[in-house]
Amino acid sequence: MLVDLNIKEFANRLAAAAPTPGGGSASALAGCLAASLGAMVCELTLGKPKYAAVQSEMERARDALAGLRKDLLALVDRDSEAYDEVARALRLPKETPEEKRARQEAVGNATQFATEIPIKTAESCLAVLEQVRTVAEKGNGNAVSDAGVAAYLAHTGVAGAAMNVRINLPGIPDSARAAQIEQRIARMEAAAERLLAETRETVARRMKG
Amino acid sequence: MLVDLNIKEFANRLAAAAPTPGGGSASALAGCLAASLGAMVCELTLGKPKYAAVQSEMERARDALAGLRKDLLALVDRDSEAYDEVARALRLPKETPEEKRARQEAVGNATQFATEIPIKTAESCLAVLEQVRTVAEKGNGNAVSDAGVAAYLAHTGVAGAAMNVRINLPGIPDSARAAQIEQRIARMEAAAERLLAETRETVARRMKG
Repeated sequence: MLVDLNIKEFANRLAAAAPTPGGGSASALAGCLAASLGAMVCELTLGKPKYAAVQSEMERARDALAGLRKDLLALVDRDSEAYDEVARALRLPKETPEEKRARQEAVGNATQFATEIPIKTAESCLAVLEQVRTVAEKGNGNAVSDAGVAAYLAHTGVAGAAMNVRINLPGIPDSARAAQIEQRIARMEAAAERLLAETRETVARRMKG
Repeated sequence: MLVDLNIKEFANRLAAAAPTPGGGSASALAGCLAASLGAMVCELTLGKPKYAAVQSEMERARDALAGLRKDLLALVDRDSEAYDEVARALRLPKETPEEKRARQEAVGNATQFATEIPIKTAESCLAVLEQVRTVAEKGNGNAVSDAGVAAYLAHTGVAGAAMNVRINLPGIPDSARAAQIEQRIARMEAAAERLLAETRETVARRMKG
């Protein structure tokens, strides 16, 4: 599995002349790192008398981020698997009309599945960003720059996954469904932009104060 | 070393209740992943007859990104080491006036060093983003979403490193030097914003075409 590779090896695999792992897995990894950093800020807040008032909020955020981190770690591998499935379908024979039809169906199905994975990645990264906004606002002020980095990483996860959905849309046979997906990811992108802007402002304000 | 940890372990260490590894190492890692993805797009472009005209440009980008990837991989560990040095200085005794002076000097020196590392990270990530913009414009169109993800990751590296510089600035004894550093990172942030915006536009245009 990709997530069993060490950082150096993972970077090597990413840089290699094969389409997987690619931007989809990298987007899920960005979200996973964001969830991890956000959880760290919760940990650095919990148990500190100065932050006693936000104790239960930080516990909830930490637990939510732990679940999202696990989901996103799994999505790092699933994204590459899903893309490999599309590549396999594209290599099916297309000599006879029957083969052509079978190939077209296989490609359509694989592409549909390959868009569902980055949609999940975008959703999970957006959920991370929501938690991180709270953590940046109420967590330990000494770690507010870490919450800021987490926000950028989670935003990258949403924006990156959205591009990976979008590049697959022309391959989806049902155009009404494709239009629905486009609307859905555009909404997620807009929400992520807003959450990042709010978090940036909070971080800048708390770093000055 | 952190970069010898597998992805899962690295995420665990990031999430743990210790300030390192934290946002500085995560920013360097974001830049390293960006350089890797950018290099992948170069590899997927090289040797393709359709892209023969940009062959030498892609070779140059690939080589530049390989160097930056190596630098950023080293910065993942160096950032945490530099922060640990600050923490060590802060634990020095401060009973007598001599101890106080010695501690203050040690903290000042360690903090200055701890700001130099994220400055290097920001510079390297900005250099990655410059290469990625070219790769997104001229590289293999099938991988343009990967170039887009690389651009977001490199931007996160610049913005994240900048926050890690800024949170250390109050600890720098020489205020003129601190002001100089602030100007320098603000310029890098502005350049990264512009490069990301340009790359986003390019990616959107090429995905439609």
